[in-house]
Amino acid sequence: MPDEPRVAPHGDPFAWTEGARRTREHAGLVRELRPRAAESALLDLAGNDYLGLSRHPRVTEAAAAAALRWGAGATGSRLVTGSTELHAELEAELAEFCGFEAALVLSSGYAANIAALTALTARGGLLVSDAGNHASLIDGCRLSRAETAVVPHADPEAVRKALDGHGGRTLAVTDSVFSVDGDAAPLGALAEVCRGHGAGLVVDDAHGLGVVGDGGRGAPHAAGIAGATGVVATVTLSKSLGSQGGAVLGPAHVIAQLVDTARTFIFDTGLAPAAAGAALAALRCVRGEPERPLRVRAAATTLYDGLRAAGLHASRPDAAVISVRAPSPDDAVRWAAACRDSGLHVGCFRPPSVPDGVSRLRLTARADLTGEQLERAVHTIAEHAPGGAR
Amino acid sequence: MPDEPRVAPHGDPFAWTEGARRTREHAGLVRELRPRAAESALLDLAGNDYLGLSRHPRVTEAAAAAALRWGAGATGSRLVTGSTELHAELEAELAEFCGFEAALVLSSGYAANIAALTALTARGGLLVSDAGNHASLIDGCRLSRAETAVVPHADPEAVRKALDGHGGRTLAVTDSVFSVDGDAAPLGALAEVCRGHGAGLVVDDAHGLGVVGDGGRGAPHAAGIAGATGVVATVTLSKSLGSQGGAVLGPAHVIAQLVDTARTFIFDTGLAPAAAGAALAALRCVRGEPERPLRVRAAATTLYDGLRAAGLHASRPDAAVISVRAPSPDDAVRWAAACRDSGLHVGCFRPPSVPDGVSRLRLTARADLTGEQLERAVHTIAEHAPGGAR
Ligand SMILES: Cc1ncc(COP(=O)(O)O)c(C=O)c1O
Ligand SMILES: Cc1ncc(COP(=O)(O)O)c(C=O)c1O
Repeated sequence: MPDEPRVAPHGDPFAWTEGARRTREHAGLVRELRPRAAESALLDLAGNDYLGLSRHPRVTEAAAAAALRWGAGATGSRLVTGSTELHAELEAELAEFCGFEAALVLSSGYAANIAALTALTARGGLLVSDAGNHASLIDGCRLSRAETAVVPHADPEAVRKALDGHGGRTLAVTDSVFSVDGDAAPLGALAEVCRGHGAGLVVDDAHGLGVVGDGGRGAPHAAGIAGATGVVATVTLSKSLGSQGGAVLGPAHVIAQLVDTARTFIFDTGLAPAAAGAALAALRCVRGEPERPLRVRAAATTLYDGLRAAGLHASRPDAAVISVRAPSPDDAVRWAAACRDSGLHVGCFRPPSVPDGVSRLRLTARADLTGEQLERAVHTIAEHAPGGAR
Repeated sequence: MPDEPRVAPHGDPFAWTEGARRTREHAGLVRELRPRAAESALLDLAGNDYLGLSRHPRVTEAAAAAALRWGAGATGSRLVTGSTELHAELEAELAEFCGFEAALVLSSGYAANIAALTALTARGGLLVSDAGNHASLIDGCRLSRAETAVVPHADPEAVRKALDGHGGRTLAVTDSVFSVDGDAAPLGALAEVCRGHGAGLVVDDAHGLGVVGDGGRGAPHAAGIAGATGVVATVTLSKSLGSQGGAVLGPAHVIAQLVDTARTFIFDTGLAPAAAGAALAALRCVRGEPERPLRVRAAATTLYDGLRAAGLHASRPDAAVISVRAPSPDDAVRWAAACRDSGLHVGCFRPPSVPDGVSRLRLTARADLTGEQLERAVHTIAEHAPGGAR
């Protein structure tokens, strides 16, 4: 018998990804990256640049100036070489604007959420987490040493029951504005429940900052709980502030705890100066033009009214985000593609990006959308709605 | 009896942080943020800007130009609005430079590590992790659904034993150059063990890229395993490339799996254009000036030789990082402070930033350090060494 060709004992250890991809293909769940050009003729109702500040000259020029002055990177952990006076300035102004004693800037909102949840819980403790919370909060719960109880969406009574009788350290955690449907959490009631149980409350205000509250000061400020004992907020610099990065806001002793123990703070390079500079400039734009938050909320209402009038299942926006339900993942993809072919860019959220498995278009309002653009958006979405979307 | 004043049933749920801080104070483990000015007279041997590119005019100007052209932020997830042609260009050049088929850019090296480990493992699988691995890899292991086996540092035999007999999907994971002591992982032997067991190998090349390998192509390239079946690398854009961000490098089907399933990719805003532009410019600087990696390695050797000649416990550098052991956390803090007072900035690593609980000074070489600066650094460190450091 001739020698068999010698084959390696094993082939590609990642060969399983091919089958996994076929499974996703059949389920309509494959994603494609579509790099965009710097200028686009598409009307953008997909991004999270709610106030239109990402391309505001004052913001982009501040980014450029910070890179030239401070360097392209922070060069190290915030604990080593990565803290500049620019970071400190941003932290002070963010805390003051949102109504908290202190702030800590991290490289993303994702990292900020993980930092808050891991540094403020301990083994033997309990984290009570809303079922609609963002993936970064869920990952924070998973990385925390505390036990996690997932409670029904936006249900303070459920939080109360979960906290009842727990003797150890407890923390409730919620998005302020939920990222898929744009609905608001009952922050006042949640804060009361937490106060009554000696529990801390962590509010992820990613979609609230710059949009809700007096002058865009965010959801905790609007609910009267900003700066309250036991309340911590996280924000991202990547949505209303048009940049990148995140922050944790809270009492000074809570921030000090994060500085000493939060792994995604300690073991991560500091936020790039350009991003810090841009966020600071954007924050000053919001302060100087409090009509921006008003305009984005008005635009969201206009969109919602139009979509409902067209018979679509649009979610009522408590901030800038609206979702429109689609019959299936494939329908959602085709619907979004048809809108794109008609010049409108909308988000298309499918599992695993939706909490309940229902695929949706996701629309975001922006402060700088005109009435004509809003009308065109509604018209385009309604025109291409698949059978079953109404 | 007079009425007692009514007190709230509970006080500050974060009051425990005050006691925790006192405990850290007694152990010498409190951190202080020291925001730095844009210009400093200190000689910096603390940052990770190994090639001195963070302030290179071509790099900072590219950051500024990208912010002005593309905006201050990516405005959304890479899957929605956050992928620009700039990201795609960076991915193509990074993959090509490091010798891999494809690359995926994320907002940090931390996020890249979590993405790779969570997306490439599954429940029932096994992750074999070096005891000296970086915190972000440890968090990736914790977030993965696979079981994790921690094996002794830099020990391919231990990896082999851990993999032996495991029937499911297996993955070994290691830093290429360990972040605290700067020693190299035995990548060739690890790859062979993995190949023999049908296991994947994930290499975190945060401290290798730009420093080791032909022209700074990184440790996997140097070990001849870049682009090999079953090998995935992660890199950060925040060290040799002087910017911010991270990337996963590997076969195209592995990268596609991450695009569809990695939570820190899907649910995170794309890297800011300024950071992507800076990293791309820095990469081109490295390509154009292959003497930079040679210079940083020579500088590290000079530092090491000088410190050993002074009788100090310096770790032999396989790349740009050197650690020097201190008798205690307090000694390390005082030693670093004395160096700083003499004009030298060195890192001071204490628990929990050290794998073995031993506090250290951490020094980094840079390509642009002069012979005079290296001599001054050695002299300053030796002069202020505490009793017991020799
Ligand atoms: C509710 C919520 N929290 C946190 C994040 C993460 O923020 P970042 O993208 O800045 O990491 C996002 C979106 O990205 C979000 O929607
Ligand atoms: C080995 C290693 N991996 C990953 C990271 C994280 O990279 P980044 O700071 O870009 O998040 C670091 C340092 O920060 C590191 O030292």
